Amino acid sequence: MEREDRGMPFIQQYENIAWYEGAEVRILDRRAYPARVEFVTCKSHVEVMQAIRDMVTQSAGPYVAAPMGMALSAWECRNLGEKEQLEYLKEAALCLQSARPTTRERLKLCTEACIPVAEKALREGRRTDLAIRDSVVESCNRRYSRMARIGEELCDLFPQSGTVMTQCYADTALGAMLRACRQKGKKIRLFCPETRPFLQGARLTATVCAEMGFETTVITDNMPSFVMANEHVDIFTCAADAITCDGYVFNKVGTSQIAICAKHYGVPVYVSGAPDKGHPTRDTVKIEMRNPEETLEAMGVRTAARDMGIKGYYPAFDMTPPQLITGIVTDRGIFSPMELDRYFIDSFQLLV
Amino acid sequence: MEREDRGMPFIQQYENIAWYEGAEVRILDRRAYPARVEFVTCKSHVEVMQAIRDMVTQSAGPYVAAPMGMALSAWECRNLGEKEQLEYLKEAALCLQSARPTTRERLKLCTEACIPVAEKALREGRRTDLAIRDSVVESCNRRYSRMARIGEELCDLFPQSGTVMTQCYADTALGAMLRACRQKGKKIRLFCPETRPFLQGARLTATVCAEMGFETTVITDNMPSFVMANEHVDIFTCAADAITCDGYVFNKVGTSQIAICAKHYGVPVYVSGAPDKGHPTRDTVKIEMRNPEETLEAMGVRTAARDMGIKGYYPAFDMTPPQLITGIVTDRGIFSPMELDRYFIDSFQLLV
Repeated sequence: MEREDRGMPFIQQYENIAWYEGAEVRILDRRAYPARVEFVTCKSHVEVMQAIRDMVTQSAGPYVAAPMGMALSAWECRNLGEKEQLEYLKEAALCLQSARPTTRERLKLCTEACIPVAEKALREGRRTDLAIRDSVVESCNRRYSRMARIGEELCDLFPQSGTVMTQCYADTALGAMLRACRQKGKKIRLFCPETRPFLQGARLTATVCAEMGFETTVITDNMPSFVMANEHVDIFTCAADAITCDGYVFNKVGTSQIAICAKHYGVPVYVSGAPDKGHPTRDTVKIEMRNPEETLEAMGVRTAARDMGIKGYYPAFDMTPPQLITGIVTDRGIFSPMELDRYFIDSFQLLV
Repeated sequence: MEREDRGMPFIQQYENIAWYEGAEVRILDRRAYPARVEFVTCKSHVEVMQAIRDMVTQSAGPYVAAPMGMALSAWECRNLGEKEQLEYLKEAALCLQSARPTTRERLKLCTEACIPVAEKALREGRRTDLAIRDSVVESCNRRYSRMARIGEELCDLFPQSGTVMTQCYADTALGAMLRACRQKGKKIRLFCPETRPFLQGARLTATVCAEMGFETTVITDNMPSFVMANEHVDIFTCAADAITCDGYVFNKVGTSQIAICAKHYGVPVYVSGAPDKGHPTRDTVKIEMRNPEETLEAMGVRTAARDMGIKGYYPAFDMTPPQLITGIVTDRGIFSPMELDRYFIDSFQLLV
C-alpha cells in the first residue's frame, strides 16, 4: 500500500494511528506519546471502541481507528451468512459510534461507509476485512489530500515570518499546515497551550511542530492572553470536533476562551475543517463530560488535597460561537461561519 | 503572642507562613503543600530572600516572610555598632525586596517598616530581632483586620446561595471572604482554576475552601469559559500582586483571560486589595519571567518531548486593564478601578 504523502509526522501516518492486520487493530497510544512509543492491541471491535473512549487515540485518530475496527468486525463475523454479516457490521458501526458523544456524527459517517464496501466484497467473493481496510486507506488518502489544501490555505493566511497560536492537537490539519509552510519557506513560530488535562498541546502538537522544524513554545493554558498581549500573535488556529451548519465550533475545552481573548486583542481566529451536515444547528451536539478525577491530577500525580471532598470537573469540549470566528478553512476555501451552507453546494462531506 | 483570629486556615496562620525564632526563619513550603506539610529553615536573611524567590512561600506569604527575614538580619548584625546595625538592616531590606520583581513595592514597604522599629529598640536597649518580630505580628494582625473587612465586603456581593470563581491563591483575602460567608450563612460553591504551572488553585485555594466547609471544584485553566457559559457564575474574584493607581491589576498569569471571559459572559470581576502608591501608573510594574522549563513539566513530570528544542515560557503575572474590572474591594470600601485616587484620601497603605 502506497502512502500518498511520505513527509508526515510519525503520529499522523495512518499505519501508526491505527492498523488492522492479523485479526487485530493496533493503535498508537497517544496517552503515552511522545514519552513512550507504545501501541494498544485490540482483539475485537468492542475493544477498539473502548480504546477510543479511553483516548488511546483522539483528535482525528478515531476516524482511522473506528473504520479499522469495522475491518476487524468483518473478520469477527466472517463465518456467518452474508445477510448476518451485514447485520453484524451495522451493529459494530453503532457500537463504534458510541465511543465519543461529541464526534458521534463523524464516527457514524466513517463507520457506516464501510458497510457498502463489505457488501460489494461479499458480492465479488473477496475478503470483507481486507476490502474495508483498503477502503480506509483510500479514504485516508483522500482526506489527506483535502487536508493538504486546507494546510495551504492556512499557510497563505500567515505572514512570511510570523507567530501562530494553536489549541489542543489539530492532527493532520496541523501537519498539512506545517508542510505547506515549509514548502513555501514561511518562517512561523508556534505557541502551543499545553491543553490540560490530557496535555495534547504539550505532548502531541509541540512534538509535531518541533519535528517539522519550527520554533515551538509550550505555554500553560492560562497564558494565551499574556502571549497575545505581548508576543504579537498573527493568527489563532485550531481544528474542530464538530462544526454545526449554523457556524458553532465544538473543539477541545479552552478553545472558546482563546477565541474570546483573540477577539479582545484583535487576533484573527481560523478553524480548520468542514461543517457537519448531521448538525444543522448547535442543538444536536452533545458535549462529553469525562471522568472528573482527571482534573485533580497532572501526569498521573495528584494535585488537589485528598479526602477533603474536593471535586473535579471535566467537559472535554466547549462551544465557540460564530461571532468569534474569522473563518472556517475548508478544502473548498475559507468560509465565514455565517454562511457555511455555501460549503454544501457540491454536497459531499470533508472529514471522512 | 495572641492571634487575633483563631478561625483561620492552617496556611494563613502567620506562625505557619513564616516565623523567626532561635536565629532562624521557618517557612511553610507551599511547593509541597497540601501533599506534605514541610518547613524550610533559613539561617540568614539571604536564605529567606532565596526562599521567596524559589516560591517556598508566595501570594501574601512574602509579606510575612520578608519582615521575619528582617528580624533574622537584626540578629545577624547584633554585635555591630548601632549605626552599622542600621546600615546592615537597610542592606538586608534591599536584598529581601529583590526576591520578586513584580511585588517589589510591597516588599519594600514591609521590610523598610522594620528599620524604625529596630532604631527604637536600640534607643530603648531592647533586642532588635524580637522587637521586629513583635512588630511583624502586630502588622499581621492589623492586616488581618483589614482583610476581615474586605472579606465582608466580598461576601456582601454574593447572593445567599451562589457560585464564585477564583484564580490562583488569594491567601488571607480568601480566608476572610470564606469566614464572612460562613458567619453570614451564605452557601457558595467555588470553582478554582488549578493555576498552572505552580498549581496554587488546585493545591492551596481548593484546600482552604474545602477546609472552610465549602463545595469546591477544581477545573483546569482552559475551563473558565465553559464554566461561565454553563454553571451560572455569580462573581469572579481574585487578589492582586500589584494594583496601580491608574487601575491596572497585576496578578497571577491567567487573571486577564478570565476577566476577558467574564466581560464576554457578563460576570462581574472583583479584585481584593488596595492600590499601590508606589505604582502611580502601570509603567513602573515589572512582570517577572520565571524559569521557562517549569511550563514543560507538571508536578515534576516532564510533559513535552525532550531533546527537540521545544521551549517553555513562564510569565508569572499578567496585567488586567481597568475596563475589565467591576470593582477593587479595599478595606475602605469598593472602588471603581477608574477612581482609585479616592482610596488615598486618608493616605495609609493597606497591605503591609
